[in-house]
Order: sequence, then C-alpha cells, then structure tokens
Amino acid sequence: MTDTARTANDRELVLTRLIDAPREKLFKCWTQPELMKQWFAPLPWKLSHVEVDLRAGGSSKVVMRSPEGQEFPNLGVYLEVVPNEKIVFTDAYTEAWVPSEKPFFTGIITFEDEGGKTRYTAIARHWTVEDRKAHEEMGFHEGWGQCADQLAALAKKI
Amino acid sequence: MTDTARTANDRELVLTRLIDAPREKLFKCWTQPELMKQWFAPLPWKLSHVEVDLRAGGSSKVVMRSPEGQEFPNLGVYLEVVPNEKIVFTDAYTEAWVPSEKPFFTGIITFEDEGGKTRYTAIARHWTVEDRKAHEEMGFHEGWGQCADQLAALAKKI
Repeated sequence: MTDTARTANDRELVLTRLIDAPREKLFKCWTQPELMKQWFAPLPWKLSHVEVDLRAGGSSKVVMRSPEGQEFPNLGVYLEVVPNEKIVFTDAYTEAWVPSEKPFFTGIITFEDEGGKTRYTAIARHWTVEDRKAHEEMGFHEGWGQCADQLAALAKKI
Repeated sequence: MTDTARTANDRELVLTRLIDAPREKLFKCWTQPELMKQWFAPLPWKLSHVEVDLRAGGSSKVVMRSPEGQEFPNLGVYLEVVPNEKIVFTDAYTEAWVPSEKPFFTGIITFEDEGGKTRYTAIARHWTVEDRKAHEEMGFHEGWGQCADQLAALAKKI
C-alpha cells in the first residue's frame, strides 16, 4: 500500500546492495570519522574534515575535497539513529534547528541481515521532482554506487 | 502581557509571553489532544481532530475547522521533545521521513521559569524570507497571539 507508493515515489532515489559484512561493521564505517574518511567520498575525492554528533538532532559536518583541492562543506542534522540498523539525516538544517538555505534531500540508510550478509539500502528523498532529477544528473547512482563499493571493501578489512 | 518583537533572523518570527502558570501545565496544554482542542485554534476556529505521537520522529496531525465548517489538515513531525521544556516540530515531513509538498516552517516552543511564572516562547523558522513574510501576512502575530491568550486562560483552569 503506502510502502509501494513510496518506493514508486518520483521524488526518491534508491541504491541497494547485498554486502558481505555484518551490519555492525557497516554502521561503524558510516559513523566513525576515521573510517568515513576511507570510503565516504568517491575517490579521487577525499574527506578533509568530518564531524559526527550521532543522535537525533546532532550535527553532521563533512567537507569533501576535489582532486584539484577545492573544498565543499556539507552540513546536516541527524534525524534518527538506530545503532546497527538505521541512520536518517537531512541537509534541510545546518544544525538543530536552523533551516538551511535549501532543503535538498533526506538520506535514509538501513542495514538488514540477509542470508549471512547485509542488505545495505541508501534512499535519498527529495522535496521536489526537480531536485530528484538534479540529484540523478549530478551522478547519484554512480557516486553512491562507487562509495558503496569502497564501503564494502573497507568493511572486509576492519 | 507584551509581545517582544525579537526578530534577529529575517527568516524567523517570534512570539513570547510571560504566563502566570507553571511550565508543566503549559507543556500539557501543548501535548494532550483533549487540552489542545481547547486553545490551539484561534476561536471561532476549532480543532476537529488531533493526533500526537510525542517523540522525535513521531507524527503530529491537527485538523483545523473554520467557522464555515471547512477542514484544514496540518501534518507534521516532532523533531525534539524535552518534557516541560521544549517542543520542536516541522511541516517539512508529513510523517517520518516523508518530505511534504512544501517545507514551510519549523516551530520551536520553549517554556522557562521566570520569577514564579513561565516565559513562553514560540519561534517559527522558515526556509526563505518570502515564507516568513507570507506567514506574517497570514496573521502569525494575531493568530499565535490569540492562541497564547487562550493557552494562558486554559492553564489557569486546569
């Protein structure tokens, strides 16, 4: 019913992978700054700075650095955190509760057991169809896909 | 009772009152559906339906009924709840975590002890200056002001 409609929602982008690692490790990779630096940006991009206040209302600050050395800060707020299961965050606030210049998307990351592996799902929900399209054209699937590969590789090593 | 026009930020609207009631009672009036029905809409408007799931990520549904009997549903999500101190909610989501058609504002309600009374502050933060202006022109100060009077009167009775 509503779940089907939501999946079919034309304001949403979804990436899902079956990753051969326990969900506890994937959750760590998503939430510990030193681990995030190793996979969160699609190489050769890097993270030059990461701050994580992992709780509903806590701030998230990630500065991405391009291969040319240009820095792009990403400010957001965590909306929901269920250890080893779910992380929800948005760029609609720069901190609790200061509206950003532009609410672009809400990220919903889930980790589920599936046949001894982990079903990793990253959903990006947008406020408008235009923003969903723009995100897709910015390379959502390629970028988040490459990062999911990097995440899977890192989770095997730790 | 005087309103202090405290608008440091041009995307923000603020209403504040010193109310002669303990903050526990004001918090109850803000969160218990049967009490909300007695003050939350500026009379002769009424609330015909109220649902409160009082926790970060919980839904808020308030249906306002005009004197002519027209109904206006308001869907939102609580972002932060500190009992007897603070309530934060937004219409940017219709439920956790489904983006609404239009993120309009975030409400930040605080209750602070002040000389045996309660400093009641209601802040409406908008994503754009245009939306702040529109909210003001829709009668924010008059509407929220009248409701604050109704809230103060109710808190004395309970």
